Amino acid sequence: MDEKKLEQILTNVKDGTLDVEEAVQRLRHLPYEDIGFAKVDHHRTLRCGFPEVIYCPGKTSEQVATIFQKLAETGQDIIATRADSSLCDDVKRLTNLDGLRYESVARMIVLEQKPVESPVGNIVIVTAGTADMPVAEEARVTSHMMGQNVELICDVGVAGIHRLLGNVEQIRRANVVIVVAGMEGALASVVGGLVDCPVIAVPTSVGYGASFEGLSALLTMLNSCASGVTVVNIDNGFGAAYAASMINMKITGAE
Amino acid sequence: MDEKKLEQILTNVKDGTLDVEEAVQRLRHLPYEDIGFAKVDHHRTLRCGFPEVIYCPGKTSEQVATIFQKLAETGQDIIATRADSSLCDDVKRLTNLDGLRYESVARMIVLEQKPVESPVGNIVIVTAGTADMPVAEEARVTSHMMGQNVELICDVGVAGIHRLLGNVEQIRRANVVIVVAGMEGALASVVGGLVDCPVIAVPTSVGYGASFEGLSALLTMLNSCASGVTVVNIDNGFGAAYAASMINMKITGAE
Amino acid sequence: MDEKKLEQILTNVKDGTLDVEEAVQRLRHLPYEDIGFAKVDHHRTLRCGFPEVIYCPGKTSEQVATIFQKLAETGQDIIATRADSSLCDDVKRLTNLDGLRYESVARMIVLEQKPVESPVGNIVIVTAGTADMPVAEEARVTSHMMGQNVELICDVGVAGIHRLLGNVEQIRRANVVIVVAGMEGALASVVGGLVDCPVIAVPTSVGYGASFEGLSALLTMLNSCASGVTVVNIDNGFGAAYAASMINMKITGAE
Amino acid sequence: MDEKKLEQILTNVKDGTLDVEEAVQRLRHLPYEDIGFAKVDHHRTLRCGFPEVIYCPGKTSEQVATIFQKLAETGQDIIATRADSSLCDDVKRLTNLDGLRYESVARMIVLEQKPVESPVGNIVIVTAGTADMPVAEEARVTSHMMGQNVELICDVGVAGIHRLLGNVEQIRRANVVIVVAGMEGALASVVGGLVDCPVIAVPTSVGYGASFEGLSALLTMLNSCASGVTVVNIDNGFGAAYAASMINMKITGAE
Amino acid sequence: MDEKKLEQILTNVKDGTLDVEEAVQRLRHLPYEDIGFAKVDHHRTLRCGFPEVIYCPGKTSEQVATIFQKLAETGQDIIATRADSSLCDDVKRLTNLDGLRYESVARMIVLEQKPVESPVGNIVIVTAGTADMPVAEEARVTSHMMGQNVELICDVGVAGIHRLLGNVEQIRRANVVIVVAGMEGALASVVGGLVDCPVIAVPTSVGYGASFEGLSALLTMLNSCASGVTVVNIDNGFGAAYAASMINMKITGAE
Amino acid sequence: MDEKKLEQILTNVKDGTLDVEEAVQRLRHLPYEDIGFAKVDHHRTLRCGFPEVIYCPGKTSEQVATIFQKLAETGQDIIATRADSSLCDDVKRLTNLDGLRYESVARMIVLEQKPVESPVGNIVIVTAGTADMPVAEEARVTSHMMGQNVELICDVGVAGIHRLLGNVEQIRRANVVIVVAGMEGALASVVGGLVDCPVIAVPTSVGYGASFEGLSALLTMLNSCASGVTVVNIDNGFGAAYAASMINMKITGAE
Amino acid sequence: MDEKKLEQILTNVKDGTLDVEEAVQRLRHLPYEDIGFAKVDHHRTLRCGFPEVIYCPGKTSEQVATIFQKLAETGQDIIATRADSSLCDDVKRLTNLDGLRYESVARMIVLEQKPVESPVGNIVIVTAGTADMPVAEEARVTSHMMGQNVELICDVGVAGIHRLLGNVEQIRRANVVIVVAGMEGALASVVGGLVDCPVIAVPTSVGYGASFEGLSALLTMLNSCASGVTVVNIDNGFGAAYAASMINMKITGAE
Amino acid sequence: MDEKKLEQILTNVKDGTLDVEEAVQRLRHLPYEDIGFAKVDHHRTLRCGFPEVIYCPGKTSEQVATIFQKLAETGQDIIATRADSSLCDDVKRLTNLDGLRYESVARMIVLEQKPVESPVGNIVIVTAGTADMPVAEEARVTSHMMGQNVELICDVGVAGIHRLLGNVEQIRRANVVIVVAGMEGALASVVGGLVDCPVIAVPTSVGYGASFEGLSALLTMLNSCASGVTVVNIDNGFGAAYAASMINMKITGAE
Repeated sequence: MDEKKLEQILTNVKDGTLDVEEAVQRLRHLPYEDIGFAKVDHHRTLRCGFPEVIYCPGKTSEQVATIFQKLAETGQDIIATRADSSLCDDVKRLTNLDGLRYESVARMIVLEQKPVESPVGNIVIVTAGTADMPVAEEARVTSHMMGQNVELICDVGVAGIHRLLGNVEQIRRANVVIVVAGMEGALASVVGGLVDCPVIAVPTSVGYGASFEGLSALLTMLNSCASGVTVVNIDNGFGAAYAASMINMKITGAE
Repeated sequence: MDEKKLEQILTNVKDGTLDVEEAVQRLRHLPYEDIGFAKVDHHRTLRCGFPEVIYCPGKTSEQVATIFQKLAETGQDIIATRADSSLCDDVKRLTNLDGLRYESVARMIVLEQKPVESPVGNIVIVTAGTADMPVAEEARVTSHMMGQNVELICDVGVAGIHRLLGNVEQIRRANVVIVVAGMEGALASVVGGLVDCPVIAVPTSVGYGASFEGLSALLTMLNSCASGVTVVNIDNGFGAAYAASMINMKITGAE
Repeated sequence: MDEKKLEQILTNVKDGTLDVEEAVQRLRHLPYEDIGFAKVDHHRTLRCGFPEVIYCPGKTSEQVATIFQKLAETGQDIIATRADSSLCDDVKRLTNLDGLRYESVARMIVLEQKPVESPVGNIVIVTAGTADMPVAEEARVTSHMMGQNVELICDVGVAGIHRLLGNVEQIRRANVVIVVAGMEGALASVVGGLVDCPVIAVPTSVGYGASFEGLSALLTMLNSCASGVTVVNIDNGFGAAYAASMINMKITGAE
Repeated sequence: MDEKKLEQILTNVKDGTLDVEEAVQRLRHLPYEDIGFAKVDHHRTLRCGFPEVIYCPGKTSEQVATIFQKLAETGQDIIATRADSSLCDDVKRLTNLDGLRYESVARMIVLEQKPVESPVGNIVIVTAGTADMPVAEEARVTSHMMGQNVELICDVGVAGIHRLLGNVEQIRRANVVIVVAGMEGALASVVGGLVDCPVIAVPTSVGYGASFEGLSALLTMLNSCASGVTVVNIDNGFGAAYAASMINMKITGAE
Repeated sequence: MDEKKLEQILTNVKDGTLDVEEAVQRLRHLPYEDIGFAKVDHHRTLRCGFPEVIYCPGKTSEQVATIFQKLAETGQDIIATRADSSLCDDVKRLTNLDGLRYESVARMIVLEQKPVESPVGNIVIVTAGTADMPVAEEARVTSHMMGQNVELICDVGVAGIHRLLGNVEQIRRANVVIVVAGMEGALASVVGGLVDCPVIAVPTSVGYGASFEGLSALLTMLNSCASGVTVVNIDNGFGAAYAASMINMKITGAE
Repeated sequence: MDEKKLEQILTNVKDGTLDVEEAVQRLRHLPYEDIGFAKVDHHRTLRCGFPEVIYCPGKTSEQVATIFQKLAETGQDIIATRADSSLCDDVKRLTNLDGLRYESVARMIVLEQKPVESPVGNIVIVTAGTADMPVAEEARVTSHMMGQNVELICDVGVAGIHRLLGNVEQIRRANVVIVVAGMEGALASVVGGLVDCPVIAVPTSVGYGASFEGLSALLTMLNSCASGVTVVNIDNGFGAAYAASMINMKITGAE
Repeated sequence: MDEKKLEQILTNVKDGTLDVEEAVQRLRHLPYEDIGFAKVDHHRTLRCGFPEVIYCPGKTSEQVATIFQKLAETGQDIIATRADSSLCDDVKRLTNLDGLRYESVARMIVLEQKPVESPVGNIVIVTAGTADMPVAEEARVTSHMMGQNVELICDVGVAGIHRLLGNVEQIRRANVVIVVAGMEGALASVVGGLVDCPVIAVPTSVGYGASFEGLSALLTMLNSCASGVTVVNIDNGFGAAYAASMINMKITGAE
Repeated sequence: MDEKKLEQILTNVKDGTLDVEEAVQRLRHLPYEDIGFAKVDHHRTLRCGFPEVIYCPGKTSEQVATIFQKLAETGQDIIATRADSSLCDDVKRLTNLDGLRYESVARMIVLEQKPVESPVGNIVIVTAGTADMPVAEEARVTSHMMGQNVELICDVGVAGIHRLLGNVEQIRRANVVIVVAGMEGALASVVGGLVDCPVIAVPTSVGYGASFEGLSALLTMLNSCASGVTVVNIDNGFGAAYAASMINMKITGAE
């Protein structure tokens, strides 16, 4: 099913000439491709214009490469998360796709076939410490690939509140803020109290001992007294960026 | 800072003669009232037009009543969460505020002094089961008090997927979806895969045994494979509604 | 004790000519072989016609090889689980048994001495993602070695519910369904609601952060609202297949 | 949709004159009734002939009564689990349904409109101790209402293995065994090793201290070395009986 | 052993005329009184001038009263923690000690026989919310009874950072700060970063859901990035005050 | 097997005309009485001369009374653990057994039909605090009923090590020491280092906050650096006493 | 202090010519040697005749070698636990002590300077599976070095109860039984119910998934319904053997 | 901003000529340097004279080297924690700073530019076992670099209480005691009961099985019955030393 057909269906649903049930029926028969070990799905990309996403852990190099090849044929952008550099090398070797790029801090493989010309809106990513950078970078690259304006403010943990206060004006200009913090994870609450926009909190596994690999930060963020804070899984920079981009797109009407 | 000064600032903000950043600067030096056991804070309400909020557990009837009285003087709407009906009776007796209303399923005390005339946007709340109603109602009443259009779809848990599919059209029209589910909490992932807007997931403590008072649903939601899902604390219908309202306000430009 | 003798005892128990206590007495003296570090047991194999099973972790190559040798002498099929390929090489070298086969995705060593001629019934294995394949393959190989018809449907996680619905017909033909899923593990509930046969859920350790090495999926499955779902240990593809085969055998009367 | 229509659809599916996809489509539009706080679903009952089930916790007396009334109209049997006797009194008062019965040990409300004439197959329930009786009774009543032959063997915990061995003959005659045990939960493994049929293990919250409200028994059962053992949630006698009945029905061909 | 004798021993140890081993020997034979169910110990009081302390849970009214009576005879001050008002009534009735006082918010029974004339130093107690008051009051009353100057600043949680900043001057004057906070417990880190004195953090069980009865706040505080923060048990206002008083005494040389 | 036969066996064992092994063989086929909800077992009592034991939680008054009646007929001593006084009243009313005694601190019902004339050996029970008394008393009463000499030393927790050292001589005379401690549970390690006999550690649920209902003390005791320390379940005074009595009996040759 | 002096003290204590308090005083000044990073302690060895013990993890090769050297000078036997073979090589190289032996399955270094001539009593070690061997061997070697008769019965897990029953006579002859089991750990309860002597249960970290590295087996054993069972830390074969040897010594009067 | 300017601001705040809000404003603009991935902060060092601190995990060699270089320019002392020796080599290579020293047991990199001439006060560090040395050394080096007198007493765990008692005199001379202990962590309570000064307890991850990587020791210390004990994160020798130094400085008036 080509993109046009899909758009047609969705347009019809929106203008009422097709009922949703019927649309679901049609959609069900279509846009995934069965390649044995995976069902490659073009559904959401087609609807949202977002890049395709591959979660790498548990997949062999061959599997990742095959999925890359299949997805690349649609002309879409592709991002692959939690990839080490040798996996990127394998994919390059097995596919010969031009333009594969390895984002080393974010540990992502990126194929940018349709570079965004004018990123929209304003997402600000804030980290508590330098060690939170890989997760923050995963969020930054993801946001960028989804066509968002994104800024990164690093190392403003709450134990030196003046560093945060010194950057509060920039943070307040955001449509959505992503807060990335390990150890005690308190930054989300403080930021949540300083801004009037949604805050998406990402606990990281940074820390030791009673941080229990991110559990401490996760609990802190879930218990935040600041309204407007929601939480994603430990180290899930991608998920935070995805949700933030959805919100930012809708706010800017870029959807 | 006396109350007048505060009102002046806020009036100026509202009529556009004072910009918000400047107002925040001024407010930072001021605008909470110290009543001994609590610091009553008019900050956010003033900025956002949202109602004041009182979290009741751990406060005596006298304390809740005093805070109600203080807040009511500003003319704002007020909601108090996690209140039982006898607390509401106490507050009525101790304050004689007209128009206090007890929302029994949501377990909230509501004072609606400035009823919203035209609620905006579209928030849809979806519950997995009937037992999730109190949390869903807390979210519904909160959203309503924040001036949002809000719809509630009940008892569409994933074990009978046809019930969910039968309501998918209505859910897809939302700007933001709130999913309320206990036990296995799987509904958030399924809904997240069916819509293209942000999904805020609220795990509930509904269940027994290995639900561990909501922990199971919480973990399920944090591990959701569906992109765009973020999570709040167990049973935190208020928090989900607050975040959803922020997003909805920004999308509709009602802010 | 040879198989005939055992069958005689059991027949006598069944027709009432031998009381159970006496049978237990006799059985106690018999069908295991003491090889020092292990008691090789031919009990269940003899009764059920199922292959012998060796759980490899914690056993040295020499121990595994010795057990293989002992078991092979009975002419039975043998499967060894959680084996890496170097262990398979060791066993080949130490035993020179013909026909040892290494199933690399399932991480199993297989000795098929009495190939099943006509597999019976219908077990369907469903996985949420590609990364769940090793566990699913352990279940598939085990089921196959137990003489069952088995089909595998891959990568139909609930975040893209259309992929599952597109395969529902095949799933519904099963006598027993095995659902293999990590992360949030929600697939078991959705499948459980779509079929009218027993569903055996296998949580996997696929995921990160708050998946806590499969704990999240395990809790989700235990809390399933769908009736007819039972659960085995994290990553226990073998156990699920064993239980499913027992059920399938009894349904088809192949026992 | 009346029952006839449903049966017609299902018959057509079975004889091949209607494909499943189409059937699902039709089913999706039908058989639940929206009564606001709940979606009453006649789906599975119609397909399986099983009684309707109401899970009571978190529902008000009025809600339970309303659902009872709605369900009773279809002429089906109904069981309500986790009900205390005062809830049963309320339902009697609010509905005046004849024949409502309270099963006090099982804590269930039962409406038997179509008594099973000839229960089929053989389910044996085994408990470790007297304190496990409520859970075992929930399983027994559920099995009975689903039309199964069911036997109950009480207080044969592993600390007095002779008591278990004394009943092994009866246990071995079962098509499915349900093992109900709290504290250390070891009974499931021992029974699993003694029988050649599926064993469904139900951990109970019986115990104190390090039993952690059933967690200890749950973990024991999940780690069982005996093949063929699957597990349900803590205290979930209903779920175990439901799965056991499904298996038993299929084995006896009574479906 | 009277106080003089004790002082003599200790003086001798200090001036070197008695070696410590010998002193320990002598001390070992002395200052506790065996009253059967308890060993009443005058050791530390004698050395430090601190009041005697009774931890009430698990003791009967009779036991608490007897210990009060015994301790009162030494002329010392006495505090009893975690007492409800009916226990205080019982102790009054059973002992007729003059001057017993019940501190209702702190849930303590106090007997002040030697009122401190000039409290020393400066301990500041800071709470995140109103619901943390009982724990803060336990700390305040304990500190007061130990002869310390103590100030209480209430409801300055991090979600409204301006409230904390508005009180920072007062906090910075402290010799020791006690931070009392439930839910996410982030206040300890922020305060720790603003002051240059030791901070003792007390997590409280205030919160719900994923606060897990104070566990979340406890972990947050243990993982604090701010140097100089140490932690006591959940709700342990007494312990925090005791440690703070020890430090304050030594700093002021009041010991 | 009728009761007479059982008595015969037991009589023979006692007068030495039947050796125990042979008796056990015979007993294995028999000697429990099925009273429906329980299998009353005279096995161990007969072999060891220990009293019969009833664990009360989860049993109705009627069930406890029936078991008491059945057991009493053998002339044995009986103890029932975790009983409240109203249960004791019920049993008295329902059975009219003479000589039922309620041990209120230990929460036990005791029927002493064959008072021990000369208790043997030496078990010392040591508690950390007064609040540990109920568990210590359960251990003391159990030991006494099993015919042991038993001494109780109360309130010698490690925070006042001189109190423990003051009693070390008495502790060192024991054949077995039972250490009962909640909160941090450190007493077991210190005692273990001071004696040369087996130490059985009983963690108690005394404490609050991070004691997690005895988990802290349990972990402490399991990690004890002192050799010779073994552990039983939280609050399991009975179990500790039973094991201690077994050891003491064997040491003194009283068996 | 030489050994003679110590023996003199202890003899005097035993014949009553020296009181214990005085003896403790004298002992306190003596028998450990401070070698900087460790305090080498000859206390217990001297009193009990047991070998010296070194726990290796966290110590450097140099530290272990130094302690070996110091201890060897007293002529005592020495065992070092949790040592890998390269550590043994290092110790051999650094000390040139004759007769160092590496027990590879038990992972222990042994120096047997005073071989036991006639081991006493009877300790039986029972394991659930072959993978439990390292822990069982640690227990066996420890018991042997402490001068005990010890027997090992392997691979008699409860899933094949006939294997256990086939060895029950041998187990029943023991003075103390050590049960070593991972996964579900149910063996301790079954053995506890079959014998009349103390059972020391050792949970092992054998297993996967919900075994949580031995936690499941630990909880099972703590919740054992069988009386007379006590528990040590996960994988603590040494601790179990030490406690068992203490008991066995006292029973046989070999002390 | 130079040190003088900072001091001026703070002086003005203290003498009342500058209000705190204004001071915070000024401080906010100043004393950290933004180097992209980190905000290098000279705040606290300037105020306290303490060395700068770098927490190494999660930072690349290049990042650590850059921060070292920047900080060294101020002439301050620098310590970097949790560094392995290869990181130290990298920093030496990348910076060529003279005088970098690697503390191998403490795993720290130290740059001592302004050696303390006369360390003040008295901190005593006590460890339970030899394996706790790395954490104790981290505390010792940190204290030393902060200008404190510090003494280390090693291997005095509670299982051999005479070793602790033999050192009690030295411990009692401390202003603050740091107790470092893994496994059961009981040492903190015993020391807390022996001294009259603050005790800071550091749980370590030393142990196995149910020590759960330090959790057991952490819980023990949090539940300590000894007053005056506070706790830091598992293995956090640095944090304990920092808090102890703060206290010691204030007591000695060296601040």
